[in-house]
Parts: sequence; C-alpha cells; structure tokens
Amino acid sequence: MRINVEECAKILSSKDNILILSHAHPDGDTLGAGFGLCRALLKLGKKARVICADEIPSKYFDVFEKLDMPEFEEDYVVAVDVATPNLLGDLCEKFDNRIDLCIDHHRTNSNFADKLLLDVDAAAVCETIFEVINALGVEVDKAIADCLFTGLTTDSGCFRYASTTANTYRVAAQLVDRGADNGKINRVMFETKTKTYAAIERLALEGMQFFCDDRVCVITITQDMYEQTGAKEHETEAIAPLTRQIEGVEIGLTIREKENGACKCSIRTFESIDASKLAAAFGGGGHKQASACLFDCSAEEAKAQLIEKCKELLK
Amino acid sequence: MRINVEECAKILSSKDNILILSHAHPDGDTLGAGFGLCRALLKLGKKARVICADEIPSKYFDVFEKLDMPEFEEDYVVAVDVATPNLLGDLCEKFDNRIDLCIDHHRTNSNFADKLLLDVDAAAVCETIFEVINALGVEVDKAIADCLFTGLTTDSGCFRYASTTANTYRVAAQLVDRGADNGKINRVMFETKTKTYAAIERLALEGMQFFCDDRVCVITITQDMYEQTGAKEHETEAIAPLTRQIEGVEIGLTIREKENGACKCSIRTFESIDASKLAAAFGGGGHKQASACLFDCSAEEAKAQLIEKCKELLK
Repeated sequence: MRINVEECAKILSSKDNILILSHAHPDGDTLGAGFGLCRALLKLGKKARVICADEIPSKYFDVFEKLDMPEFEEDYVVAVDVATPNLLGDLCEKFDNRIDLCIDHHRTNSNFADKLLLDVDAAAVCETIFEVINALGVEVDKAIADCLFTGLTTDSGCFRYASTTANTYRVAAQLVDRGADNGKINRVMFETKTKTYAAIERLALEGMQFFCDDRVCVITITQDMYEQTGAKEHETEAIAPLTRQIEGVEIGLTIREKENGACKCSIRTFESIDASKLAAAFGGGGHKQASACLFDCSAEEAKAQLIEKCKELLK
Repeated sequence: MRINVEECAKILSSKDNILILSHAHPDGDTLGAGFGLCRALLKLGKKARVICADEIPSKYFDVFEKLDMPEFEEDYVVAVDVATPNLLGDLCEKFDNRIDLCIDHHRTNSNFADKLLLDVDAAAVCETIFEVINALGVEVDKAIADCLFTGLTTDSGCFRYASTTANTYRVAAQLVDRGADNGKINRVMFETKTKTYAAIERLALEGMQFFCDDRVCVITITQDMYEQTGAKEHETEAIAPLTRQIEGVEIGLTIREKENGACKCSIRTFESIDASKLAAAFGGGGHKQASACLFDCSAEEAKAQLIEKCKELLK
C-alpha cells in the first residue's frame, strides 16, 4: 500500500524495536538514509538498528559520527533505498517477505513491502527521509544532517545530475544550516582518490573504447587491472560517470569483470536514452540515467550483447 | 568606499548607459554575473552592455540565451568578479582608473573602484548579484536564472568546494524555481569533455609528479601536449582540480607552458594551506583554496621555485 510522509511518520511513531535494512554494496544514500532515520528514532526513545549485507566502506565513517546501536528482537522492519528484495544481498533470504515498510525513490520499486513511501522525483531517498524526520517532530541535529547530506550529495552526483531539483538544493541548504559539514563530506566522497584508484582510473581511461559512431563509450575493468594496481572493486564506483563525459556519447558502459569470470555492467546515459530500459533487457534495473545489470558470461561477451542492444536503442 | 546590497541597488537604479566589465580569460562566474546583471538593467529600461578582453568560450552561449545588447557611450562602469584592474586584461589600460563600481567576492580585492560591494563569504559573485537584482525589484526570469546558476555552479565546483554555504544552495534552489536548467548547465560545464580535452587530460595524468613526501602534486601542460592532442589552452581549466584529488595531497600545482616560453601556475589546496598566500609569493592572487600566478621563466624553473616555497609552507 502506498502511503505519504505523514502516514509514514505516524506509523513509525507507533512502532518500537525497528530494524532498518540498507541495500547490499551500500552507497551513501542507503547508508545516509538508514543511519539518519535510525538516529531520529533513537532520539524518540525507540530501539533501532541499521544492518547491511555487506561491509560498510570506511569513508562513510569518516563523515558519519559513530553510532552505538542497541541489540533487540525486531518488531518492525524498514528497508531504505531498496527497489527490489534481491538488492538486499545476503539479507534477502531472511527478510524477503517480512518487510513492513519501504522508503524509496526508484521508479523500478517492485512494491514488495507491506507499506511503501515512494517519491520518484527525489534525487536521493534522503530528501524523503528528511521530510519523514521533520514529520516525526525530531530536530535534525548535526549527526543526522551529516548522514542525510551524504545521501543527498552522493546520489545526485554532488548536485550535478539532472535528477537534482530545487527541493534537493533546498534540503541541502537546511542540512548545512543544521550543521552538515558539506565541504568535508563532498571532499571525502568526490575529491579523494586513493593512489590505487588513480592508477586503475588511468588504465581505464587508456582502454576506453567507442562504438556506434562514438555514441557508445565502453570501459572494461578486468581482474588483471585490479591485480596490476592493487585497487579493490568498491573503489571503482567513480569510473562509471566518466564514460558519458566525452562529447557526443549518449550511452556509457562500465563492465567490471568478477573473480568468477562473470561480470557486471554499470550504465550511464543522458536524456536521450533510458538507462533503466537498457538494464532491464538484461534483467537489471535502476534510474533513467543510471542503471546496472549482471551477466553470467565474460566481459567480452557481455560487451557484444550490450552493444547490439545499444544499436537498437540508438536507431 | 564599501557599500551594501541596498546601496548598490539604489546607485544602479539612478544610473543609465551602464558598461559592465568581465575579467579576462572569462569564467562562468564573471560571465554569469555580467550577463545576469545586464539583463536585469535592460529589464529596468536602461542601456547596458557586457564586455570582456577575451573571447567568450562558446559553451557559455550553449546555456545562456543570446542577448542583444545596445551600443552607447558609457556613463557608468561596473566591474564584476574582478579583484584587481590588471585582471581586466587588455581592457585594463582604458578603464583602470574609471571603474565606478566593483561587485566582487575575492578576499584579495584591491579596492580599486570608487564603490565596492564585496562579500567574501559568497561562493560565487552571482550569489551577490542575485541579491542586487532582487533589491532592484527586477523579477528573475529564466534567462537571468540560467546566467546566475552558471556562475554559482562553476565557482563552487558544482557545489562541491568548502566555499559552498547554505546560502549558495538556497540561491540555487530559488534559481531552479525561476527556471534555471540546472541539469543542462551542470552537464555542459562539468560533464562534457571534448575528445581533445580527454586526450590532453590523459597525458596530464600520465605525467603527474609528486614532491614533498607526496604532499605536493604537479601537472605540467607543455606546448607539445597541445600540439599532440589538438587541445586549446582554455579547454584545460578542468585539469587543475585533478591535482588535489589524490589522497594525501595538500597542494596541487598545474603549470601551463605559454607560447612565448613563459608559464602560468594554477594552485589548488585544502584547508591546511592558503593557496592565495602561495600565489602571492609569486605576485599572483585568488582564493584560499584556488589561486594562480604567472612566471616569466620556463615551466621547469617555475616548478623548482614553487616546490621550494611549498617546502616552507608545509614545514
């Protein structure tokens, strides 16, 4: 059942022992939303905790204040920024049919939770969480503001993507007013390259390929490149946006080879192409200009399949 | 004489035939401020015109609506985003002592104009121009909003730099409300690399050097690199921020060789180092985290001098 912000706040007010699930391979938005909401619920005197199937990259704890979360038996389960249950990764099996509330902003949300608060116009789910926290009557303090700002800025590409609205900037202003350290957060999230990342980025740029009259740009990250540079897979998130930055490119594909020989493709587009449609053709999903899909084949085979599909879409 | 926003609006209201000067090597902020203010004055029925010593890169006209500006003999001269008269380039000689009003946000403003409206806390001078236009009683339309948003986003590094305040985000929200096409502007300003730029960026990254225990990163752009890639100097503005993105780097230097064998250095830092001080040691200036200076020697010699100075600052 679809609910609005006020209904969502009313329901959360009436619950206790609330478990919050972030999606696997967590990003700034699912973590900012999870920890921001958790802090607000704790301020209301409730028990609340955030869990995630995968390890949380340390850069988030460079900007989020550490949070002591109580242990408890959950009575209510909330998923944040989770479009489909399988995105919960290893938590999917346990929680698949037990999610009471989902707060999300993905057009592709499969409506799997008992209640759904969905705003597809929000650049980040943290925009919606900000409204929920206000509706809960909790004062947004610096720690909450840092969490929500992190989600806002990471999902909007530092306020760069076309998904950024007047409301995104307005919420950002209010979070900075409440103490969010925007300079530091943006620096850690966007301006800090490890030496290993800088090395793999250089290899990636060197190997950039163009197809379909240069309207498609492909970067392939091989296992060999990880070995050569010492970079880890989670470090390479910043590479996908590079593919669509070249003049004339309409579809940017970043194919990452996995250890088992399979691969994953991140898709970036501009308005002319719906990235979620391209991903859907291979069982994936996402947003109109940023999506992803998995392949059970080699990077080379995946590339061939993707380029065939790109040719159709660009006709 | 320092004046405030209301005084500035009152003075502009009383004048006609207003010539607006942008600084040489124009960027988004000086142009956004100039054309935004010019449009507002034209809406008030005044004659106004923007001029600049150098050619305006075409990307600005991809996002600013073309403006027909009347010819007239100027009665009042306004400089926007100009810290010292020599930054006017070839216009300096003619206007050096004739500038009636300067609207600026540089800490290093030399107070050269008869009247000065200076807000050093503004991330972009367009923040202040927005207030001036409001105080003039002119409604900000889409064309003005696009100009001011361009200045706001380019000077704040797309809202990324620590100079970005709650007010910057708040003004951005209002400009988007008035029709500023934030998605397109950010894409043109930040997400579009020409193939020639992409090629020179790759060479620049390949030649990156580190000094002072990797706390200083240097990129040198040689005349040979321009020839090899076909890139033009004005295309290489986006390179300077790359120097301070590597983990541990506190000072990023981008040295561009000029045709005559002399060179220019762009300096980027984080909070630990005042970039304007480093530039000032070589007769340059700018902001705390972004500054520039000119050298009458080769890039290699300039690099040696700069690194000596960096060693002192990093002690």
